[in-house]
Amino acid sequence: MARIAVVAGDGIGPEVVAQARKVIDAVLPGVEATEYDLGAARYHRTGEVLPDSVLDELAGHDAILLGAVGDPTVPPGVLERGLLLKLRFAFDQYVNLRPSRLWPGVTGPLAAVKPGEVDLVVVREGTEGLYAGAGGSLHRDTPAEVATEESLNTRHGVERVIRDAFARAATRERRKVTLVHKTNVLTHAGSLWARAFAAVAAEHPDVETEYQHVDAAAMFLVTQPQRYDVVVTDNLFGDILTDIAAAVTGGIGLAASGCINPEGRYPSMFEPVHGSAPDIAGRGVADPVAAVLSAALLLDQLGHPRAAARVTAAVASELAGRTPGVPLRTAEVGDRLAGYAVA
Amino acid sequence: MARIAVVAGDGIGPEVVAQARKVIDAVLPGVEATEYDLGAARYHRTGEVLPDSVLDELAGHDAILLGAVGDPTVPPGVLERGLLLKLRFAFDQYVNLRPSRLWPGVTGPLAAVKPGEVDLVVVREGTEGLYAGAGGSLHRDTPAEVATEESLNTRHGVERVIRDAFARAATRERRKVTLVHKTNVLTHAGSLWARAFAAVAAEHPDVETEYQHVDAAAMFLVTQPQRYDVVVTDNLFGDILTDIAAAVTGGIGLAASGCINPEGRYPSMFEPVHGSAPDIAGRGVADPVAAVLSAALLLDQLGHPRAAARVTAAVASELAGRTPGVPLRTAEVGDRLAGYAVA
Ligand SMILES: CC(C)[C@H](C(=O)O)[C@@H](O)C(=O)O
Ligand SMILES: CC(C)[C@H](C(=O)O)[C@@H](O)C(=O)O
Repeated sequence: MARIAVVAGDGIGPEVVAQARKVIDAVLPGVEATEYDLGAARYHRTGEVLPDSVLDELAGHDAILLGAVGDPTVPPGVLERGLLLKLRFAFDQYVNLRPSRLWPGVTGPLAAVKPGEVDLVVVREGTEGLYAGAGGSLHRDTPAEVATEESLNTRHGVERVIRDAFARAATRERRKVTLVHKTNVLTHAGSLWARAFAAVAAEHPDVETEYQHVDAAAMFLVTQPQRYDVVVTDNLFGDILTDIAAAVTGGIGLAASGCINPEGRYPSMFEPVHGSAPDIAGRGVADPVAAVLSAALLLDQLGHPRAAARVTAAVASELAGRTPGVPLRTAEVGDRLAGYAVA
Repeated sequence: MARIAVVAGDGIGPEVVAQARKVIDAVLPGVEATEYDLGAARYHRTGEVLPDSVLDELAGHDAILLGAVGDPTVPPGVLERGLLLKLRFAFDQYVNLRPSRLWPGVTGPLAAVKPGEVDLVVVREGTEGLYAGAGGSLHRDTPAEVATEESLNTRHGVERVIRDAFARAATRERRKVTLVHKTNVLTHAGSLWARAFAAVAAEHPDVETEYQHVDAAAMFLVTQPQRYDVVVTDNLFGDILTDIAAAVTGGIGLAASGCINPEGRYPSMFEPVHGSAPDIAGRGVADPVAAVLSAALLLDQLGHPRAAARVTAAVASELAGRTPGVPLRTAEVGDRLAGYAVA
């Protein structure tokens, strides 16, 4: 039976993760879960972010379920670089999978887009680009200061994520992949991405392809999100575009994410796109849907597509039954979802 | 009297620039305009992008009015790096000014946002960051290929554009500046931006400040664009955010832009955010409003704020009078705008 590591984290993290576990237990009884105490709370208490021993233990699991980490008093970068990105890089999670659907029952912000019309997935590169941490500064705190950030892109890293995007597109109804980059300005990395994309596309004559500059894609996600099926893009562009996609499909309260090592050599990690939301933490009002949908991605990745489909269907029922404006209770939503999932 | 250089460019560029010139002539008779033939057409005809002699001549003008350059057959980067970015960098146009308003009469895509509620301006850095052109590749076209793009940020460059943003905010009603970056991942550049921002903010106790990560800002531009007044950000983030801002305020057909050298040591350049739109070129149906609003920014920069205000008011009248769905004729819009502007 699958062994998963659970990092509930800070703020609303533990609240939403508890619901995700309820739902996992309902559809796949017997999953063994081990809790790991990581995040802002541990950092404040012990100064530790991710001890090597914990990294080793995490490596021994089949997958990681993460709630949210962070609070406003931790300096920027400490938990991001030291924990989240460290895990993504250490476990070679090169596919950052972020589906966005405008679910029936959900009111999106766009007047002209109806529920059911948006169903896209962004395949964001997860181990390269500007996230590599290749940067520095000189003459800090003087008028001569210069600071750099370098985007590193390898054929190896770019091609494998594009390959994943095409494989996913081939199983979908519309079979379309959009490459998003900024080839007209970032000519070196852009050319590498474009050539790798063309090479993989040639192996998939059945998949439709298009290219868009990131600024145009950001715009079209707002004016015509219906046009996208699978979007493949680099780490930073993917960060931005997935938040836009979340915004136009009802907000990050519903947005799931998987940081996937497709070969299964290392554990993949599943986490809602939202943060720890300290403003509403502890009140039992956070929407657990993003965490539960992340659990569905986890189940799918661990080879339980039917269990995953039951969870997704449960979310569909839950959202279709919501009355706009009626406040929700985190635990009640979790109970309902677990109920729908086994019904 | 002001001497301006006009680069009408390709596609719909000449059509919309003709209207902008009509309007300039109406509100400020006697402006001397010299046409320069640059863009895709010239590149195809002669292989030239921007001869040094032309660059020298342009330098002798008070401002540049640009329509749009490019067509799909020019390889990516040729006109962008060789013409547009070359001008921005050569003329030290470090303030890329991009106002977005949801004008009365315009139907935006957001159900909950009413005309008049959005009035923001993005002050995008124009001479640094990932646009510096500092990148390269090794082992091209082999499995070992690596490609880099480097973001270069100087205290000099960052501080001056932040200073400009605060100066603009101080003249606006809400007096608020939002810094957008990604300090939690791009820690070196992010720290430089954050420290420069804090230093300039300390000189402006009357201006409210906030910070947002770029992914959050992209989301909030879709869910709550009303919250922004002045946004200051780096070159690439500004590229993306201004297209989102344009999308939520009715599209790039209305989005104006100024590439400004505030000291006036070099000419500033004004151009609609839209491209050459080859699909509708030559049919006389392009909306000239973005070009005309860019002309208003030009007039303002050249020290004619009252003429600029007349142009902006003319645009307001034009948009308020439009009937959704009724096709427009480029030249008629230009005639009407010129008429309103002198009425
Ligand atoms: C917290 C941060 C490091 C992270 C990212 O930038 O990838 C987040 O924004 C996300 O999208 O998962
Ligand atoms: C054409 C391109 C170089 C340019 C940019 O990226 O700045 C455009 O997108 C813009 O926003 O003016």
